Amino acid sequence: MNNFMDKDFLLDTECAKKLFHEYAENMPICDYHCHLSPKEIYENNQPEDITQLWLSGDHYKWRAMRSCGVSEGYCTGNASSKDKFLKFAYALQYCIGNPLYHWAHIELKKYFNIETPLCAKTAEEVFERANEAIRNGDFRPQTLIEKSNVKYVCTTDDPTDDLKYHMLLAGQDLPFKVLPSFRPDKALGINLNGFSEYISSLSKAADTQIDCVQDVINALCKRADYFNEAGCRISDQAFDYVPYEECSKEELDIIFKKGLNGEELEQKEVDRYRTAIMLALGKKYNELGWAMEIHIGALRNNNTAMFNKLGADTGFDSVDDREIAKPLSRFLDALCKERNLPKTILFNLNDKDNTPLATMLGNFQSSEAESKIQFGPAWWFLDTMDGMTAQLKTLGNLGVLGKFVGMETDSRSFTSYGRHDYFRRILCRLIGRWVEDGWYANDEEILKEIICGISFDNAVKYFNF
Amino acid sequence: MNNFMDKDFLLDTECAKKLFHEYAENMPICDYHCHLSPKEIYENNQPEDITQLWLSGDHYKWRAMRSCGVSEGYCTGNASSKDKFLKFAYALQYCIGNPLYHWAHIELKKYFNIETPLCAKTAEEVFERANEAIRNGDFRPQTLIEKSNVKYVCTTDDPTDDLKYHMLLAGQDLPFKVLPSFRPDKALGINLNGFSEYISSLSKAADTQIDCVQDVINALCKRADYFNEAGCRISDQAFDYVPYEECSKEELDIIFKKGLNGEELEQKEVDRYRTAIMLALGKKYNELGWAMEIHIGALRNNNTAMFNKLGADTGFDSVDDREIAKPLSRFLDALCKERNLPKTILFNLNDKDNTPLATMLGNFQSSEAESKIQFGPAWWFLDTMDGMTAQLKTLGNLGVLGKFVGMETDSRSFTSYGRHDYFRRILCRLIGRWVEDGWYANDEEILKEIICGISFDNAVKYFNF
Amino acid sequence: MNNFMDKDFLLDTECAKKLFHEYAENMPICDYHCHLSPKEIYENNQPEDITQLWLSGDHYKWRAMRSCGVSEGYCTGNASSKDKFLKFAYALQYCIGNPLYHWAHIELKKYFNIETPLCAKTAEEVFERANEAIRNGDFRPQTLIEKSNVKYVCTTDDPTDDLKYHMLLAGQDLPFKVLPSFRPDKALGINLNGFSEYISSLSKAADTQIDCVQDVINALCKRADYFNEAGCRISDQAFDYVPYEECSKEELDIIFKKGLNGEELEQKEVDRYRTAIMLALGKKYNELGWAMEIHIGALRNNNTAMFNKLGADTGFDSVDDREIAKPLSRFLDALCKERNLPKTILFNLNDKDNTPLATMLGNFQSSEAESKIQFGPAWWFLDTMDGMTAQLKTLGNLGVLGKFVGMETDSRSFTSYGRHDYFRRILCRLIGRWVEDGWYANDEEILKEIICGISFDNAVKYFNF
Repeated sequence: MNNFMDKDFLLDTECAKKLFHEYAENMPICDYHCHLSPKEIYENNQPEDITQLWLSGDHYKWRAMRSCGVSEGYCTGNASSKDKFLKFAYALQYCIGNPLYHWAHIELKKYFNIETPLCAKTAEEVFERANEAIRNGDFRPQTLIEKSNVKYVCTTDDPTDDLKYHMLLAGQDLPFKVLPSFRPDKALGINLNGFSEYISSLSKAADTQIDCVQDVINALCKRADYFNEAGCRISDQAFDYVPYEECSKEELDIIFKKGLNGEELEQKEVDRYRTAIMLALGKKYNELGWAMEIHIGALRNNNTAMFNKLGADTGFDSVDDREIAKPLSRFLDALCKERNLPKTILFNLNDKDNTPLATMLGNFQSSEAESKIQFGPAWWFLDTMDGMTAQLKTLGNLGVLGKFVGMETDSRSFTSYGRHDYFRRILCRLIGRWVEDGWYANDEEILKEIICGISFDNAVKYFNF
Repeated sequence: MNNFMDKDFLLDTECAKKLFHEYAENMPICDYHCHLSPKEIYENNQPEDITQLWLSGDHYKWRAMRSCGVSEGYCTGNASSKDKFLKFAYALQYCIGNPLYHWAHIELKKYFNIETPLCAKTAEEVFERANEAIRNGDFRPQTLIEKSNVKYVCTTDDPTDDLKYHMLLAGQDLPFKVLPSFRPDKALGINLNGFSEYISSLSKAADTQIDCVQDVINALCKRADYFNEAGCRISDQAFDYVPYEECSKEELDIIFKKGLNGEELEQKEVDRYRTAIMLALGKKYNELGWAMEIHIGALRNNNTAMFNKLGADTGFDSVDDREIAKPLSRFLDALCKERNLPKTILFNLNDKDNTPLATMLGNFQSSEAESKIQFGPAWWFLDTMDGMTAQLKTLGNLGVLGKFVGMETDSRSFTSYGRHDYFRRILCRLIGRWVEDGWYANDEEILKEIICGISFDNAVKYFNF
Repeated sequence: MNNFMDKDFLLDTECAKKLFHEYAENMPICDYHCHLSPKEIYENNQPEDITQLWLSGDHYKWRAMRSCGVSEGYCTGNASSKDKFLKFAYALQYCIGNPLYHWAHIELKKYFNIETPLCAKTAEEVFERANEAIRNGDFRPQTLIEKSNVKYVCTTDDPTDDLKYHMLLAGQDLPFKVLPSFRPDKALGINLNGFSEYISSLSKAADTQIDCVQDVINALCKRADYFNEAGCRISDQAFDYVPYEECSKEELDIIFKKGLNGEELEQKEVDRYRTAIMLALGKKYNELGWAMEIHIGALRNNNTAMFNKLGADTGFDSVDDREIAKPLSRFLDALCKERNLPKTILFNLNDKDNTPLATMLGNFQSSEAESKIQFGPAWWFLDTMDGMTAQLKTLGNLGVLGKFVGMETDSRSFTSYGRHDYFRRILCRLIGRWVEDGWYANDEEILKEIICGISFDNAVKYFNF
């Protein structure tokens, strides 16, 4: 029996151990997509205790607790810090097979030097020891980022954001860069509440009047230039499904007016507006040399009662299952045939889309970049042993794994860098097994390049950091 | 090389062996969903021979035989008992990788004490020995259930059923309970032949006039109360896809009248009617504290010629592939926001739905029960090594495996309890491997609770038996 | 650590080694579906060098190169033979986990006796040695086919083809048969450019006037008879999705006229036409005792710019994700209820369709053939270790693996027979593991029959060769 989550956790061959300990483990981190707050990084406050660090904003943990029948007071409510932690520990012991269980123990070891398995009966002891470590140590965001060997932190920002904290951080002498990413989701939300207010603030941010769709595009492009100046190299869009509907400019402006007036729109109208904006943005991204990330397949805010109580991103999202291959192909082709297709990373939340996406890449590769179109790492619900292994195998089977840009955390937590450790172990496990079984040549030079590439080097090269 | 299907079948680590033999193997069975006949349990007749026991009603076996080119006479026709068995044995030897092969050998060993691998050349010997065991032993339903250590048998019953046999069985001093489940599929079948006749019999059973949709609901609720008195704690619905369409009460009654008159209905109309009934039933189930099972994704009666000859449930069903995430979310949310959502178990027949369903759970958990919304065990076509392993891993990855209510047989056969044995071996294999590899802490107390919980305890607690 | 891709490549148990080396390895090949050119087989020219043999027409390799940022000149362009090969070798070293990597090394060993792992640094050496082998040896198509122990080569041919080369080959004394297959895709392409020209050439080939849909059917049936005379026993259809729409004869002819005139057709109209043709062809195939292959799920020609430059089948296709279960069921049932359903092989390109397809089979089996309806081997993008293993396991779980007709190459290359070697190793690995673990009885006689059956015998019997 192996020791519980020791230094060789997940590494089941000699080759895997070698690849991990000699190469992967010591590579820096390029966290090219996350939801960390630049304000919090800048303000750099020490957390009060492990409950604040772990449980104040992590919907993964809340979901696990709710699934064990823990009442809301211990998740997002007013229960004491200690009681919340004890309830979490109780839930965690039933989370057998869940990445939360592994993440928690990786983080306990990495940041708190605690190797005790966390469960109901050890919860008090772990709570005390972790808090003692916080009291006696430095758990401020910048320290956690630096200690985690992170070189690039790419946050997720609205086009209307003034990027004040990014600029303040750029003025500091930090061993890592905090770069904005451009996420225009709200500008695409023509059918959602608050759209006209959003257009107003976009108008203000871009210092330009917005009366038609072309004005929206112009304003977004101005903001993209502003972001680019601030070091942005990445855009990000969340698509619950992939819209693709062409139409005339005239029709677009009618749809836009209806949206501004809060009139009911048909799905086709929404899709037409989104298609027009996305085609224009894709072109702009390409001009700027940015990469375009597309996150496909979240079904959000499913529980109306809890949404009304807690708002978005509180643990009530799940995985959609709509058809995406054809509209995605048409969208990418529409950009490609006008020579406007930027570097693109396709992320799916439903593993049924692994094969369509991983084969979609190959339709649009070119000599502009190595694996110009990328299959994004397993993300959110798929960020598990099985999900990551499936993504790596699918990309291996259907594309070119050796040119993969690798992992990002997609996280809101400063201790989540353990997910890169988790990912790299899974990568080395998989490739180590292939080499050990004689399925890939045991050429150390090439293996080193592949492992270091997927861990860090490919991303830095791909994004032109 | 391991012995063929010996006591350690599927148990490939020391930990798996320990978990199975010390804990799982000896737990009782709570078979919370099956299609056994309460009449047959009550009448308790000895079968004539193994052909009657195995081949008289088992469409899994008929499908395997037909797939080997065996003609219908040996499946559902007039061939002799012996010839039918010989043909089945012939087919079975080609069923490598099929759970039928494992189930057959588990049952031969468990009920007949036969360890000879069944194939064409051993068929006669096995036929003779099995029949001798039947002649010299007690193979009556009640004995088989008792010998299998079953404590709860939940049958599947129409709301119009008088539950006579359940009451007769309740009056006997049996070491197990036979409880009805409420399956209102026919009341939802507004577009099917026989709908108006069904509404008539529902009217009679509920002793109430039915003129509108509210009357249907009232009648069903009356029957639910009747079922509840008889010990029912579970409802069950089969959805080939998930309907969700809201509409007005007036429109509903127009649709209902059309249905009663046998007029052609549009899909949207059918969905509106079903939505209304299901929302009302969900509310009722919640009031009664029942669990609502939803079985999604069977594509039934595909072969018209054979349907006309043999009727339903004779081996001509397969797996559908429609989109289900969004309508299912809307249905559960509609119940949840009115505080009407009962405990719910979601079953999928298409493994592409594993991820959408296992993440759907988390949207609607609450402190009313531990894992109030459950991801049902791999069922029917997915009730295989790979299917069960995938279900357990998916639930582990995306939910809380430790609170899972575990297996049911969904079977029409009195010797099918071997499927619980099969399931528990797979469960112990998976968890044993995780512990052995150092992926989960080797804490015997917690592991025991988890294994015993998934084997039996969680279900009994969940259903309030 | 195992040796790199040695004689026991993929064979990880003693049983797997035995099954492969004693049985599978030496069985002949029945390549019942490929895209080899009968003209090239007949003309039987020696290739100039390995670049011509490997890179002149293989879109799998071009995709891998493009994915590594290799520019088009090295794929389909004017770069030198050597430079193309060097670029391919560079790309190959990043194709870790890709079947291309395995196929390349299997072919190097099998046809060139080269065991050096191919990568950038060995590329020159391998290029020289391979070309020397070609200069000094016989690499003509007929020799490659014979050396690969192929007994049947089934090409893919248009109904208008005169089959001249098949007839010339039939007149030669060859140790293998080259048989045509009937692929009426163009006759189904009523919405595509060139439809009316195609109908003209069909009219000419069948020597019959074509004025209505029945005329199209009659012409195709005449050509099917012609193909049958030439030894054809297989038809093949490519469906991106599965059309099924019934309509009247009158409506059909209106649709047909619109198609001939190049008028825009609605999707439903296209589907109605295709349904009518396919139902008529299915009936004809059944009369002729042919097998009907249906390849479902390619999303073709996604990159318009490259399509305009290079045409079809050049590496710009990917995997579609539409719903197929219900229309496929209705299509097969429509044939079945009129007793017109031929032997059928269902191929899927999207692995999400594994379960729906593998269960669809069972709806339509009969005593007319052993596994009359087959689940086709993992194909194109799924022709990988994981894809083939999944196909075998799915068929094992849900159907009768022992009656499977096995592998075909679907290839355009004369050295691609290594894919049968690859498939058989995966088959023996899987079954060997099951036996070794005690999951299937270790009965050598039955195992031999199953392995030899899936390797060759089942196909020859199924197709009546």
